[in-house]
Amino acid sequence: MIRVGIVGYGYWGPNVARNFHSAEGCRVVRICDGNPDAIARAGKALPGVETTTRLSELIEAPDIDAVAIVTPVSTHFDLAKRALENGKHVFLEKPFTATSVQALELIELAERKNLKIMVDHTFLFTGAVRKIKQLVDDGVMGQIYYYDSTRVNLGLFQHDVNVIWDLAPHDIAIMDHVIAGKPEAIVATGKNHFSEYEYVAYVTIYFANNVIAHLNVNWLSPVKVRTTLIGGEKKMLVWNDLESDEKIKVYDKGVEIENRQGVYDLLVSYRSGDMFSPRLEQTEALRLETQHFIDCVRTGAKPLNDGWAGYRVVNMLEAADKSIKKKGELVCLS
Amino acid sequence: MIRVGIVGYGYWGPNVARNFHSAEGCRVVRICDGNPDAIARAGKALPGVETTTRLSELIEAPDIDAVAIVTPVSTHFDLAKRALENGKHVFLEKPFTATSVQALELIELAERKNLKIMVDHTFLFTGAVRKIKQLVDDGVMGQIYYYDSTRVNLGLFQHDVNVIWDLAPHDIAIMDHVIAGKPEAIVATGKNHFSEYEYVAYVTIYFANNVIAHLNVNWLSPVKVRTTLIGGEKKMLVWNDLESDEKIKVYDKGVEIENRQGVYDLLVSYRSGDMFSPRLEQTEALRLETQHFIDCVRTGAKPLNDGWAGYRVVNMLEAADKSIKKKGELVCLS
Amino acid sequence: MIRVGIVGYGYWGPNVARNFHSAEGCRVVRICDGNPDAIARAGKALPGVETTTRLSELIEAPDIDAVAIVTPVSTHFDLAKRALENGKHVFLEKPFTATSVQALELIELAERKNLKIMVDHTFLFTGAVRKIKQLVDDGVMGQIYYYDSTRVNLGLFQHDVNVIWDLAPHDIAIMDHVIAGKPEAIVATGKNHFSEYEYVAYVTIYFANNVIAHLNVNWLSPVKVRTTLIGGEKKMLVWNDLESDEKIKVYDKGVEIENRQGVYDLLVSYRSGDMFSPRLEQTEALRLETQHFIDCVRTGAKPLNDGWAGYRVVNMLEAADKSIKKKGELVCLS
Amino acid sequence: MIRVGIVGYGYWGPNVARNFHSAEGCRVVRICDGNPDAIARAGKALPGVETTTRLSELIEAPDIDAVAIVTPVSTHFDLAKRALENGKHVFLEKPFTATSVQALELIELAERKNLKIMVDHTFLFTGAVRKIKQLVDDGVMGQIYYYDSTRVNLGLFQHDVNVIWDLAPHDIAIMDHVIAGKPEAIVATGKNHFSEYEYVAYVTIYFANNVIAHLNVNWLSPVKVRTTLIGGEKKMLVWNDLESDEKIKVYDKGVEIENRQGVYDLLVSYRSGDMFSPRLEQTEALRLETQHFIDCVRTGAKPLNDGWAGYRVVNMLEAADKSIKKKGELVCLS
Repeated sequence: MIRVGIVGYGYWGPNVARNFHSAEGCRVVRICDGNPDAIARAGKALPGVETTTRLSELIEAPDIDAVAIVTPVSTHFDLAKRALENGKHVFLEKPFTATSVQALELIELAERKNLKIMVDHTFLFTGAVRKIKQLVDDGVMGQIYYYDSTRVNLGLFQHDVNVIWDLAPHDIAIMDHVIAGKPEAIVATGKNHFSEYEYVAYVTIYFANNVIAHLNVNWLSPVKVRTTLIGGEKKMLVWNDLESDEKIKVYDKGVEIENRQGVYDLLVSYRSGDMFSPRLEQTEALRLETQHFIDCVRTGAKPLNDGWAGYRVVNMLEAADKSIKKKGELVCLS
Repeated sequence: MIRVGIVGYGYWGPNVARNFHSAEGCRVVRICDGNPDAIARAGKALPGVETTTRLSELIEAPDIDAVAIVTPVSTHFDLAKRALENGKHVFLEKPFTATSVQALELIELAERKNLKIMVDHTFLFTGAVRKIKQLVDDGVMGQIYYYDSTRVNLGLFQHDVNVIWDLAPHDIAIMDHVIAGKPEAIVATGKNHFSEYEYVAYVTIYFANNVIAHLNVNWLSPVKVRTTLIGGEKKMLVWNDLESDEKIKVYDKGVEIENRQGVYDLLVSYRSGDMFSPRLEQTEALRLETQHFIDCVRTGAKPLNDGWAGYRVVNMLEAADKSIKKKGELVCLS
Repeated sequence: MIRVGIVGYGYWGPNVARNFHSAEGCRVVRICDGNPDAIARAGKALPGVETTTRLSELIEAPDIDAVAIVTPVSTHFDLAKRALENGKHVFLEKPFTATSVQALELIELAERKNLKIMVDHTFLFTGAVRKIKQLVDDGVMGQIYYYDSTRVNLGLFQHDVNVIWDLAPHDIAIMDHVIAGKPEAIVATGKNHFSEYEYVAYVTIYFANNVIAHLNVNWLSPVKVRTTLIGGEKKMLVWNDLESDEKIKVYDKGVEIENRQGVYDLLVSYRSGDMFSPRLEQTEALRLETQHFIDCVRTGAKPLNDGWAGYRVVNMLEAADKSIKKKGELVCLS
Repeated sequence: MIRVGIVGYGYWGPNVARNFHSAEGCRVVRICDGNPDAIARAGKALPGVETTTRLSELIEAPDIDAVAIVTPVSTHFDLAKRALENGKHVFLEKPFTATSVQALELIELAERKNLKIMVDHTFLFTGAVRKIKQLVDDGVMGQIYYYDSTRVNLGLFQHDVNVIWDLAPHDIAIMDHVIAGKPEAIVATGKNHFSEYEYVAYVTIYFANNVIAHLNVNWLSPVKVRTTLIGGEKKMLVWNDLESDEKIKVYDKGVEIENRQGVYDLLVSYRSGDMFSPRLEQTEALRLETQHFIDCVRTGAKPLNDGWAGYRVVNMLEAADKSIKKKGELVCLS
């Protein structure tokens, strides 16, 4: 029985707490938040669970095996480090850390102490992303050519990060999960207007294996869009996450190039067949994810979304930040 | 009565010829195409019009006042130059020329000889773009923040240009027409795969007046998309050109920033009101455009889409090409 | 302070209880349900509220002023009658009663005892229906010609009523609220297959003032549809309740008939102008409705959705049932 | 080589003429229209074809084997009868005739003279209807439960028939083609307002084999809808003819009833699987249809859409007219 403590009971914390509460093989022992109102809400929602406003009563407590940190990104490093130093496994809200250096330090610490880190990339556990992953891994899509995502809406303008750090972690985590290749370099463009932080941004990621990815994120769109196109050799798919049914449509469409001897000889034939929209599993993503964390802690298995997955996302966010400040300069990924 | 000759009767030529044929104040005198089949079709479609396969019989003919050149871009410069030298006004298919240097030379020649050049940016004459232009010019939109266009579909892969030269001229011409500011620099990223020419590309254009524009063009999309978002201070609009009705939706949405003293004081309030979809004029765009050319030739007025408009588009295409070859390097526009 | 008791804490009861709990000028005193599990849930959700499994402790209790009955329709009459006899105001789930005779008896009893009856036609309090009502009452639509609603989806098949009694009460209540005229006769067709109850039905309602209404309800549709078209003299509107934004679109479209001297002289001209989609209020409908009930009880005002509104709906359901059993025989409404 | 004459060169005639002109095994010999302007257009469009304003020069001409009659329905009977009497095969615009008695007389005459009649139910030859037919005939859909069609738009108000005779022939012909069972009775409701002819109508058709069909036709809708739902035991489909791609979506959805011993024991389980959208053939429907006519004339085969198909449609239109005049009275089909 894994004993879990929750740090942070604001917007997302209640969801994390509720799902750990109902996960198998674990028990939520204690919830900590500096805000007494949050603590009161926690007590009401999960009657049997202890609450505290003092961090040490949770992060250093001998009766806690794992800590879920659901606080702003600027606090992640200190909290996670302290939890690891006290021998706790760590579940962290995304993005993992504020810098890639911090991410590496936490990974190193966890490996040294033989503890698990998992970053809350919830989308990886949705029916949609699991189906996309399966279609790619099973070879249905064929070789991937491009990954093109649009995630735009009106608000919420953040006060301490730009739109890339706010919206793109979702897409980067999914892209990283789905595309086998290694990202090599990033170009980001965008515009700020109302503060120092960009409200609109366009991020191109070049991969080693000839794949290109592009993200369009925007806090100032009159319409909400959550659409990803993936172009493959054998199939192409459109994922519209705002559809209640038919979120994913797989098209038997593509091109075949019959002659590459010269540009004027280029013979392109177009294939256009049936479309199908697979039924997706409806299980709550966060429920699967919290269970996965508990299972990994118990069995020692490597989490799908471990510290390295978190690091790769932060590394790309950092590179995008560098590029956008220099108006699209190419930033190579280490 | 302006006497018009048509050079090129392939895919688009018949439309240009038909519209000049029915325009007021002009007469299509002769059609030239090197392909006898094309000439046969021309003769059938426009019985009273002469046809020829010899260019000189048209471009040097004393009974022709204006020449419409509807041929591949690589031929534009030579044909237009010869027409101008022979004292003909020139209507040219887009893009204007293969290089910006050629564009400038043609403009200079036309000005010297007091002849008109018009580049066929047909979209500027559609009901949709005319309505957008009006909304912007009348101040309905307020200050423009961004222009974000997506123009993707499956095919047609071109053999001699990349997807930017094929699809982006439409968007660049529209953007140039609608946005008052001066474009200053371009970043383009993309990927080729099947030939040396990029099949997917992402182009960011920075403007002097704090506007940003972005174009997403792709020949390898499973779905056809023709959508432009324009974010303004007072209104935001979505133009979906694939809608049969309601192509343009104008949203009374936006943000107001109430305090700029510091990032932590940033107070953002969101406005979300009615949406309206204006009725658009249905007149065929090419019909209005050919008439506009004839009217400009007759009255001496400056065409909306004159040589300079054509130059600006070619200049940006050239810059995008330079940038994409260097993986997104910032290319300043002269 | 109106003291409210809730009878029935199954699927919908918790919503009714929660909204009365937060309404102004009232207090939920006690909740009754025969099922101990339901009672346990109620106790948890509303800690300060008493619970009981014995009906008499609520429906006859001297410390209760008004009773909300959220139970199956077959029980409505007995429960409401007993509540009224004990001097309680009554809020009833829709449909009001199982027969129109029962409805009339309850209305008569309430009037005699000077008590309020309100039937839970929640849709009347949605932003969408309130906007439609306003557009009609303000004369924006002009004279109404037709009302055409489609409400179809897969399931839930009911065991004790047909699809008309399950889905059509919503549409009939809305139609009754929006259209000024008096319904005169009903034709209903449909089909059963899996049990004695029709799973699909089509209901036409003829009004006195030349209006026609039609309802399409179906438990066996592969897609969910919630769409209503209203044709008016000056405007026509489409209400798509599944849209998250832009639920209502008002079209400046219509016909004008210029000559009625004979069929061959009939000159029809079509008007097609702008469309607009008004912003709708987002307040929870049930919250407004429960507050309206409390306000009516306190001030003596007549509820929008009083017993007579409930009666008219039941009367039409009864007529539709008669008609459908006789394969579309015209049934006049008394 | 079948020699074809065309009677009527108004709105639809040019399409029929053009398709017969390019069909194999036939030649359009002569076109007749009383309107000299129409004749002039015909001569221009089909240079080698003779034209005339005198009917006898076509309908009695010895050098004509088959006549295509593309005129208003009121003239169909007389023209077709005369053509058959003169030994010509007949291709007729839909609806076949103005009455079912006329239809039977023409069928009898054609059979006696061993001539072919084909009624222009063009939709039967579209890729969409051919795919639906195939899905039903191959058993993919399982037993059919219902057929529910909506065909509404603004205009065109007809001067001599109601909306049922104008729009419903399409749906009735398709339904008749797709559903194996025998239609037994019809209920139609609707409303006129601007003339004696109904502008909106709702038609229910009861079939022998437990199928129900419903048609919603309307000339006064602000939006254009062309949607048909077909509910089957194994699959359900939605056909949206306004989609450019994905016109047909086949849903692996349905219900299973596990126990029919009593209504309270009714156990319904819902199945919800993948959706697929089959690729449709793009060949022009009228081209396939005219070729089919020629082939039937040459080989003696029975046309898919022969006189009997035309009769069944007219028979249902007549019944719908009778029913609508009596406000939905059930009219049995002979």
